[in-house]
Amino acid sequence: MRLILAAGTTETALIDGISAAGAAPELTAHTPPADLEIVAYGEPTAAPVVPVSPTGCPTPAVVTRAVREVVGLEVTAVDAGLARPTAAPTVELGASPGEDVREPVAVADARETFERAHAFGASLPDDRLLIGETIPGGTTTALGVLVALGEPLSVSSSLPANPLERKRSVVSAALAASDREPGDCAGDPVEAIRLVGDPVQAAVAGIAAGALEAGIDVTLAGGTQLVAVAALLRHAGVEAPLSLATTSFVAADPAVDLDRAADRLGLAVETTDPGFDREEAVAMERYCAGEAKEGVGMGGALTVAEGELPAVRAAILECCERLGIGNGSAELRRSGG
Amino acid sequence: MRLILAAGTTETALIDGISAAGAAPELTAHTPPADLEIVAYGEPTAAPVVPVSPTGCPTPAVVTRAVREVVGLEVTAVDAGLARPTAAPTVELGASPGEDVREPVAVADARETFERAHAFGASLPDDRLLIGETIPGGTTTALGVLVALGEPLSVSSSLPANPLERKRSVVSAALAASDREPGDCAGDPVEAIRLVGDPVQAAVAGIAAGALEAGIDVTLAGGTQLVAVAALLRHAGVEAPLSLATTSFVAADPAVDLDRAADRLGLAVETTDPGFDREEAVAMERYCAGEAKEGVGMGGALTVAEGELPAVRAAILECCERLGIGNGSAELRRSGG
Repeated sequence: MRLILAAGTTETALIDGISAAGAAPELTAHTPPADLEIVAYGEPTAAPVVPVSPTGCPTPAVVTRAVREVVGLEVTAVDAGLARPTAAPTVELGASPGEDVREPVAVADARETFERAHAFGASLPDDRLLIGETIPGGTTTALGVLVALGEPLSVSSSLPANPLERKRSVVSAALAASDREPGDCAGDPVEAIRLVGDPVQAAVAGIAAGALEAGIDVTLAGGTQLVAVAALLRHAGVEAPLSLATTSFVAADPAVDLDRAADRLGLAVETTDPGFDREEAVAMERYCAGEAKEGVGMGGALTVAEGELPAVRAAILECCERLGIGNGSAELRRSGG
Repeated sequence: MRLILAAGTTETALIDGISAAGAAPELTAHTPPADLEIVAYGEPTAAPVVPVSPTGCPTPAVVTRAVREVVGLEVTAVDAGLARPTAAPTVELGASPGEDVREPVAVADARETFERAHAFGASLPDDRLLIGETIPGGTTTALGVLVALGEPLSVSSSLPANPLERKRSVVSAALAASDREPGDCAGDPVEAIRLVGDPVQAAVAGIAAGALEAGIDVTLAGGTQLVAVAALLRHAGVEAPLSLATTSFVAADPAVDLDRAADRLGLAVETTDPGFDREEAVAMERYCAGEAKEGVGMGGALTVAEGELPAVRAAILECCERLGIGNGSAELRRSGG
């Protein structure tokens, strides 16, 4: 088993009020590089930020890292359009960062990225893959492709108060800028990504499609961004069994209907409650309050460590301490400073 | 603990009679990408070759992979001048492939690569690093920098009959082309690399120097190519304790004097005998006959698995079987065929 993490960026994340991944909009491009370094090394090593929300909620990368420390999960990161360098090792797909979905074309190289990702996924000798993501703004692009495909499913948020109306109006503007109506991309998932999606969707959908064709079991590890990928796969004609592993925080989001997603898309959904309410720590309280919820493969990683959640929680707290998170300070921390 | 593998290329490998890393010279550029894929995934996934010598000796990557399977060693690969793509995840140092050392300048970006590698090594939070390499032609460039530094140490070979005279004449031609005499680069290791070395030396020396400065224990994991890196580090004024972990096959090479290297360079040398003479398998017999000997961090990986060598040998044989190596066929195998 291997966890693949596709990391990328979209200018969509810079739209006011869209994302909590990174305390300040201009720093969100550093979040995916920092997330990959946290998973690979336990802390950001070259990225100049520790991704933590303004209220002190740490990136889910610390959860995935903690799982690695406890159960030794193998992780392979994929550069699916990073806009800033990372010192983490990455598989190179040649993907470019995504544009604001309100541009006519959001992911110019969607087709090429999907195809390279497909070849990569098909080449792997693993029996089973978990595939997760890190891309700020990703729930808005998820809504973008869901609407473009005509799938009546909603999306979650990394913010406690989901700015769904804001996302819907961004997606409407995005479709209008691409001269498309809702549902116009049904059956053409790569076109949906190209017009109103993000490069991480192209990478994750491509890897999953290639792996499934090669007979590898695939679990999409994440929340509604991965539900959108499941929709892309079904619209690509992929009929293989597909599962989604996510967190109880996503399942508890009133905007999310996982049962409906499971029904429409033929998804076996597994949710894990990491038991954050059993610890007194700001970092975990923020998750219980509905922040972050998912990302960086968190839900999938937790399924792997299901019997060892107390050890995982201890490792999370150690990781947070190392990163200077949750000690009462809500300010953005820069590494090396 | 983390094993770092720096992978790169030098046109020096294409000189007739220099290297056994790859059955045919024109395919040697695929050897480091294939090695990294074997370590990451258990087999080449995108590289079009399985590195195996004409007599059926597998790349030491299978040993490092086997150790990972048995003891879960964490490996981080670094692109230190790959000339062909790899599907393995790599840390990007922006290094270019090296030229033939008989050109006036062999590694134009030696300084930049050394400095980026230094920053990477210094940034890591690990307590201990093992650092290995994969670069065909690397013992010739090792001899190059040793002579340029004025260090009277000889080098090993991936061939059973070490073509030392050939290497010495190449190094003489290399120094002449750079308008230098033996010893002219004493105290200026980056210049030695730039003129008669290879990009992997710049990466390994830089990572080691940075890590040592940050208080990380460093073990150079390899044979005389890593002895050359130790010399580069001492000529850079690095005085920290430094160890070398290599195989009994390097120690048994009559061209190699590890005691002398240890004395001159202040190196704590540890050698591991993987017990290949206890198995009846072509792949292991070739090592016992003096082929390959080291590479891809093999000696260092073996120290980590010292209590589990029978399991490692079993994993090696499984890996060889998966790769179609050692079944009596000595021909070059291409993956996917």
